[in-house]
Amino acid sequence: MENQKQQGENAGKSRILGKQSIGLTQPVYLVESASVVGKKEGEGPLGNLFDLVGEDDMFGCASWEDAESALQKKALGTALQKAGWKPQDVRFLFAGDLLGQEIATSFGLLSFEIPLFGLYGACSTCGLSLTLGSMAIAGGFAQKAACVTSSHFASAEKEFRFPLGYGNQRPLSATWTVTGSGAFLLSKEAQGGKKKARAAITGMTVGKIEDYGLKDSMNMGACMAPAAASTIEQHLKDFGRRPEDYDKIITGDLGKIGQTVLIDLLNRHDIDIAGQHMDCGIEIFDAGEQDTHAGGSGCGCSATVLSAYILKMLEDGVWKRVLFAPTGALLSKTSFNEGQNVPGICHALVLERQEG
Amino acid sequence: MENQKQQGENAGKSRILGKQSIGLTQPVYLVESASVVGKKEGEGPLGNLFDLVGEDDMFGCASWEDAESALQKKALGTALQKAGWKPQDVRFLFAGDLLGQEIATSFGLLSFEIPLFGLYGACSTCGLSLTLGSMAIAGGFAQKAACVTSSHFASAEKEFRFPLGYGNQRPLSATWTVTGSGAFLLSKEAQGGKKKARAAITGMTVGKIEDYGLKDSMNMGACMAPAAASTIEQHLKDFGRRPEDYDKIITGDLGKIGQTVLIDLLNRHDIDIAGQHMDCGIEIFDAGEQDTHAGGSGCGCSATVLSAYILKMLEDGVWKRVLFAPTGALLSKTSFNEGQNVPGICHALVLERQEG
Repeated sequence: MENQKQQGENAGKSRILGKQSIGLTQPVYLVESASVVGKKEGEGPLGNLFDLVGEDDMFGCASWEDAESALQKKALGTALQKAGWKPQDVRFLFAGDLLGQEIATSFGLLSFEIPLFGLYGACSTCGLSLTLGSMAIAGGFAQKAACVTSSHFASAEKEFRFPLGYGNQRPLSATWTVTGSGAFLLSKEAQGGKKKARAAITGMTVGKIEDYGLKDSMNMGACMAPAAASTIEQHLKDFGRRPEDYDKIITGDLGKIGQTVLIDLLNRHDIDIAGQHMDCGIEIFDAGEQDTHAGGSGCGCSATVLSAYILKMLEDGVWKRVLFAPTGALLSKTSFNEGQNVPGICHALVLERQEG
Repeated sequence: MENQKQQGENAGKSRILGKQSIGLTQPVYLVESASVVGKKEGEGPLGNLFDLVGEDDMFGCASWEDAESALQKKALGTALQKAGWKPQDVRFLFAGDLLGQEIATSFGLLSFEIPLFGLYGACSTCGLSLTLGSMAIAGGFAQKAACVTSSHFASAEKEFRFPLGYGNQRPLSATWTVTGSGAFLLSKEAQGGKKKARAAITGMTVGKIEDYGLKDSMNMGACMAPAAASTIEQHLKDFGRRPEDYDKIITGDLGKIGQTVLIDLLNRHDIDIAGQHMDCGIEIFDAGEQDTHAGGSGCGCSATVLSAYILKMLEDGVWKRVLFAPTGALLSKTSFNEGQNVPGICHALVLERQEG
């Protein structure tokens, strides 16, 4: 069994990096993607970059949860169409959302009939899904995989905070959950149907839960910043890199306050990412004009900005290599009401421009 | 880069089986495990096989959610202790539970400080976690990984059904959520510390969502049986096997009604598993004596029965090869209240006796 020997030799050599990371000597290709967003996101600074912008936030559905499912369905459908793939070409789906028991995912992706790995990483889910999808392909378990995540402003408010009709006032530290879904197609082959891949995934750093004792669910940026700091610091160590080795180090939805906390925390460990840091939540809205306070948030925030903006900047050659590090806040209405802290988690991926 | 070439050659050859399956030419070893259960489970037919049985179901905590976190912490701690592993030996954790936003997992596993992949597969999560954990190891991304899942009767009733104090009457088709957690340690090496591995994992079949239009959350067995039928049928096709190739084909928590539906559905496709089928939910309680109606359920049901009973039967040589196929019902309180169906999903693993 020569193959058996090869599997054994590969395992545990090249792919394990440092304490928390995976290095891919042979990259996994992010061949195509799609982003679908709501009206408010369409009116923001990145509005003209998204594949689809809804006329309202219901997407023809009767409930917010169904609307979020519709977002996922539309995002994956659009990505498949753009790549010229059929659902049956995709071996595994890696997907999740913010709702209890992941109902946006279950009902949104059911009709594709693709074997599904259900994930939960709060707003880090885009990173989580791309990490596991990349592992499935690099490990030789699939030729093609797809990763989907979503969030919806109204379903998230209902799930985590106050009834919309209550008209609760939001502190300036609060973020605004993005109504949107991003879908990503991964492949072992660089050619994704009609054209070259949007980016190459060359490494990942898997996050652990970080809990600094914060309890303020209206300041999620501060709750999640320690996780971002931990994963980014460990990433640089594991890969033996400096912040300057990246054109951008991109968090998902820390917002303005979380950004300050992240930069401060890393500064204390003599790591300066001020020149490289970008946050999807800060980019997606014009906080002043759109009254979104600290910025956008939700699984859909990092996912849609990755698809619409980050991958475009890599394709256009403006950036060569970025670290994509979305964070998630690990709370539920129940844990919050029972007085628990709000710990965070952050999963990071290295995305590189695919030349040629 | 010779290594690069090897990675490329392996990928997509030996590991992709049929439509939904993964074959491992080099097995992943389930080296050790632990099970922690509540009082009622301790009084059931498998009571003396569990590692730890709680005196009550609070496990020294102030809330049911905290108690469920304590179950996970105790289960993983016990498994590590039995294997003589330290938390830092474990590269990745694969874990999930039934609660909204997976709070039992987040707060239960935080203190181990192990990089975490958060999963949601409802009561199929034990199969989901073992599948992804095995892929991480077989793919060469980790030498050691751990998989943890849990459920708690009281936190699940609160999450999905009625307040316990309401004293709601349960139909005979209802199942009783198991209070318990199972933790499993996976390794690339057959030797798991002190002794030989409990079992070898040699293949997996990843499930897709199956929706037959059922809406009765008090008859979860019937809701999930189509998913079990689909995954088991596809598994047999993908591996070119018959039911007789397994000593047992084991579902997680279909209960008595779900068992009947499963056997019927497969019979219609000329597959007879009546002689091999076993359901963890039927085994864990004495339904007549313990008033648990159709049987036990919950992520903790299949996980604790796998650890305490199934692995023991493999170790004792009573069984040589089993198919472990836990199912999950993909609903939330919200989806149920909005009139959605209750689809199901089922992930299956091949577990073999480790000789020697």
